[in-house]
Amino acid sequence: MNIAIIGYGGVGKAFVALLEKQTELLEKENLHINIRYIIGRNGDIYNNEISVCDAAADPALDLAVILTPTNKDSGQPGLNYARTFLSAGKHVVTADKGLVIHGYHELKQLAKEKGVQFTLGCTTGGALPSINGGIMDMAGSEICSIEGTLNGTSNYILQQMEDCGCTYKEALAAAQKDGIAEANPALDVEGWDTAGKLLILCNVLMHTNKTLDDIEVQGITHLTPEDIKAASEDGCKYKLVGRAVKQDKDIQLTVKAEKVPLQHLLYQVDGKNKAVRYVSDTLGELVIMGGASGTTPAAASVLRDIVNIHRGYQF
Amino acid sequence: MNIAIIGYGGVGKAFVALLEKQTELLEKENLHINIRYIIGRNGDIYNNEISVCDAAADPALDLAVILTPTNKDSGQPGLNYARTFLSAGKHVVTADKGLVIHGYHELKQLAKEKGVQFTLGCTTGGALPSINGGIMDMAGSEICSIEGTLNGTSNYILQQMEDCGCTYKEALAAAQKDGIAEANPALDVEGWDTAGKLLILCNVLMHTNKTLDDIEVQGITHLTPEDIKAASEDGCKYKLVGRAVKQDKDIQLTVKAEKVPLQHLLYQVDGKNKAVRYVSDTLGELVIMGGASGTTPAAASVLRDIVNIHRGYQF
Repeated sequence: MNIAIIGYGGVGKAFVALLEKQTELLEKENLHINIRYIIGRNGDIYNNEISVCDAAADPALDLAVILTPTNKDSGQPGLNYARTFLSAGKHVVTADKGLVIHGYHELKQLAKEKGVQFTLGCTTGGALPSINGGIMDMAGSEICSIEGTLNGTSNYILQQMEDCGCTYKEALAAAQKDGIAEANPALDVEGWDTAGKLLILCNVLMHTNKTLDDIEVQGITHLTPEDIKAASEDGCKYKLVGRAVKQDKDIQLTVKAEKVPLQHLLYQVDGKNKAVRYVSDTLGELVIMGGASGTTPAAASVLRDIVNIHRGYQF
Repeated sequence: MNIAIIGYGGVGKAFVALLEKQTELLEKENLHINIRYIIGRNGDIYNNEISVCDAAADPALDLAVILTPTNKDSGQPGLNYARTFLSAGKHVVTADKGLVIHGYHELKQLAKEKGVQFTLGCTTGGALPSINGGIMDMAGSEICSIEGTLNGTSNYILQQMEDCGCTYKEALAAAQKDGIAEANPALDVEGWDTAGKLLILCNVLMHTNKTLDDIEVQGITHLTPEDIKAASEDGCKYKLVGRAVKQDKDIQLTVKAEKVPLQHLLYQVDGKNKAVRYVSDTLGELVIMGGASGTTPAAASVLRDIVNIHRGYQF
């Protein structure tokens, strides 16, 4: 399988290293991945005259891995790259939430017309198989609701506040010091990262066509040590929960800090962990927890999609 | 897709009803399932002169659903039926643990030679996507250990002992009265049901060729109310845990009642619920919980395999 990697930051570099590490395992599957192009900000690293359009036009290319940074406002430039590769009849695997938020249905349709796959397993919790689980583990069943703790950084900060009795600001500073929270943590702690993931899960698994504007979003920044303590005295923990629930004939989408009781499965999702819970019509409920953080698990999530495409799955 | 159903007990009947219920959803997938044969103990229900061999010889048949009762000692008669259909180039989907325990590698090889699929998602926890999760959600990664609470009946009895402070015998009687435990509960409470599921998970996901004799099996029948109380005072619960762990160059398999602390994810697996936990090399850990009990969820698990085959997956 000849592939192009578009976007060469942390996940891209981890992905290249991972292909080397997993060579033996992939050979057992008869899957030989050959990196033909790596196009970063300054062009192709092998030959900087080659552009995304050139790579897409290469008849020998099978698949593009699009790892451009998420742009929540327009989905660009990833969105145009995905259009280019799919139009040329190449599979696309992406970790870029922005392009999925802005172009999911269009890109899915394009992939269908061209007889190729468009997969996005990495966009809804990295290594957490939330999309995969919803598609494959719920096949033949209808998902009636989605509930998830999908942002590791917020979860870590809430845990810090719980463990140390400190304020939100102190917990954030500790998370930044530990390399967990970014210098600008707004997307994580104000709920927009969760909202983006929830939107993708809902549009893919519940077949809707929602936008970020349809989600009522609240973060964790208003929580005080007193809130956390009062919840704890009630046997509860605050979790930043994304939720998609059928109501009348529509689906309500919310992201907010919720008090979760001990008996609730999301109570146990500690530290940087993530989890999602689906309720279905015929398979009961499914809870998926895990999803290690970091560039290697994110790269492993991209590789998972490629292996599942190689195994013939029509997503 | 033309199918044959072999074995027409509770799951078989639920499966037929489920196909009716999910018609619309399946049509959206362009999957039209036509039941051509239903062969029970007394022959085909449409035409009792038709045998399994006749059905397998039908060129129009695509897939056989084998729902024969589990025979842990020989895997028969399901094993021979699976051989017959796979040899004739038909996909086989089964819920019969016995035939998988005794014939997994042989049948998998046969399916490969014939270019068809052999799937068994229902054998390791019914609706719980334990096998699916291990195959699809861990694709491109290596599973290093398996740990699971895989028997709903034992879990229910342990919960009763915990909640009521009663003896094992009293809890069993209550579970039998509630229709949870069977009249002869030996396979469940002595650990052999868990051992069978663990064996299948290990052979499929860790590529071993173990037998039931390789598993150290202990059940829950020896536990006293005092054991349960002492565990509870330590903040623990007893769970019947199946475990496959790499040790030196081999894999150790055990089934036993273990004291699980509050922080452990299996602690939360209450009542009739089930869960499995995989630790992998590159995707971190994955915990899958859920798996509603009963004939409809088991049938939905069979249907899930069929849909995933229809979507092109090569298991």
